[in-house]
Amino acid sequence: MVFYIIGLGLGNEKDISVKGYEVIQKCEEIYLEAYTSILGVQKEKLEEFYKKKIIEADRDMCEQKIDDILENLSKTPERNVAFLVVGDPFCATTHSDLYLRAVQLKIPVEIIHNASIINAIGCTGCQVYRFGECVSIPYFTEKWKPMSFYPKLLANKKQNLHTLCLLDIKVKERSEENLIKGKDIFEPPRFMSCKEAVEQLYECAQAQKDNNSEDYIAENTKCFGVARVGFENQLIVSGTLKDFLNIDMGSPLHSFVVCADELHPIEEEMYNHYHFSNQKNTQQLQQQQ
Amino acid sequence: MVFYIIGLGLGNEKDISVKGYEVIQKCEEIYLEAYTSILGVQKEKLEEFYKKKIIEADRDMCEQKIDDILENLSKTPERNVAFLVVGDPFCATTHSDLYLRAVQLKIPVEIIHNASIINAIGCTGCQVYRFGECVSIPYFTEKWKPMSFYPKLLANKKQNLHTLCLLDIKVKERSEENLIKGKDIFEPPRFMSCKEAVEQLYECAQAQKDNNSEDYIAENTKCFGVARVGFENQLIVSGTLKDFLNIDMGSPLHSFVVCADELHPIEEEMYNHYHFSNQKNTQQLQQQQ
Repeated sequence: MVFYIIGLGLGNEKDISVKGYEVIQKCEEIYLEAYTSILGVQKEKLEEFYKKKIIEADRDMCEQKIDDILENLSKTPERNVAFLVVGDPFCATTHSDLYLRAVQLKIPVEIIHNASIINAIGCTGCQVYRFGECVSIPYFTEKWKPMSFYPKLLANKKQNLHTLCLLDIKVKERSEENLIKGKDIFEPPRFMSCKEAVEQLYECAQAQKDNNSEDYIAENTKCFGVARVGFENQLIVSGTLKDFLNIDMGSPLHSFVVCADELHPIEEEMYNHYHFSNQKNTQQLQQQQ
Repeated sequence: MVFYIIGLGLGNEKDISVKGYEVIQKCEEIYLEAYTSILGVQKEKLEEFYKKKIIEADRDMCEQKIDDILENLSKTPERNVAFLVVGDPFCATTHSDLYLRAVQLKIPVEIIHNASIINAIGCTGCQVYRFGECVSIPYFTEKWKPMSFYPKLLANKKQNLHTLCLLDIKVKERSEENLIKGKDIFEPPRFMSCKEAVEQLYECAQAQKDNNSEDYIAENTKCFGVARVGFENQLIVSGTLKDFLNIDMGSPLHSFVVCADELHPIEEEMYNHYHFSNQKNTQQLQQQQ
């Protein structure tokens, strides 16, 4: 009896490790965590590749029904269960929690690591060692504009560090109306684009200016937008913060990097290589798509 | 003609992705970068698994002979070359440089991501989003004690962030004497242990005290030592900085985490779970070894 938490990596069904693939073959039950990130392929594609049935686990299941799954497992020592996670198993707090719940039930847990955006962001050429604290940018609404991520960005900048910005994902969210009425009607999924993120960064800068602070991310700050990292049609584009108001990175998932003020020579070269105005490069990228 | 840079992940030959494995099968030349990190298995094991011959690429080859390899490739459009890297392709600056050199020669480059310590460190339960700048701790010598990493640790702590400390690796190093004499006699490889790292952190703290600074990492700071992450005999241990003066983590590779002053409830639980004094847990870990 083992509870396996397996990272699927970022792209498609073949980004799983050979070890992960082999482990799945000896599991009786396979769950796919499907709300903290998305893979470049559908569940059906995974099922076909593994030749196994997969059960999708949404937020409710991960947070509430998982105890039942684990308790069942603890009572059936001949079974193995796999819990598949996009990226790396420990890229979300939920998964540490899951690990601990299994341990408490004395279920042996094995972790199979994989790439996640936290390390794959190195594809921009920004050195992974020069990133400060990672931030998550949530969708602003009319009434609710949580800007607590912004001071973190400023703190990283002050220390001459890059910032990886993870952009909001809204999956299986209910409208305020449906929530009040207790109706399980879900809004269509939303994935924040680099453009939307930058618009919100402008709002934050404006709020700083309104407070007479001169501490904000300047328009000419060098940035990277990445879309669909690890997918076949991955896109990496560099430009200033302002440039990104007009750059369409295409379909999800997007992430965004606000660079340190000083770039190392190789980072600078990578920045120039991926610059949106670099026609040769754009052609190359389009070919990839 | 494609130049593939393929991440091997952290553990053994089966941590490569299915995609990576398939790509290697269509490559005529395969290089293994063997000086910025180590895998849990020898080159021969990889060769057996891939059924392919592998050429080991040391620092000299990566920095000097790689141009020849790439130029050869650019002249033979029917060939593919794979460059294997422990962890993720972009976990070292060398590899961004490699990417750029290939691009300059108009060679299509494909990257195949994998886990690296940068994201796999989440296995401690410390949230990957709460890490500040990563530091590298170099071996001190009698005459040379570079402490520039220490202020970074203090800065992270001040922001209530964890710090991942990568520990020095000395592979194919020549003694001062042999260097002067121009002799290619290499010292045995050295891998800094958690214990050695902590001893050096104590030296840094003492230097701070000698300068009448009260800003240093206190003895009771919570820490995690990790050894052989992703290997079958992986070890995760928590304790205070002082505890680690007496904890033997076994064979390489080690990394070390200096925790933020405040731990989130789940981080705290994971800290307790992995605590060195936790007998039940130690037994479990020994079984794994």
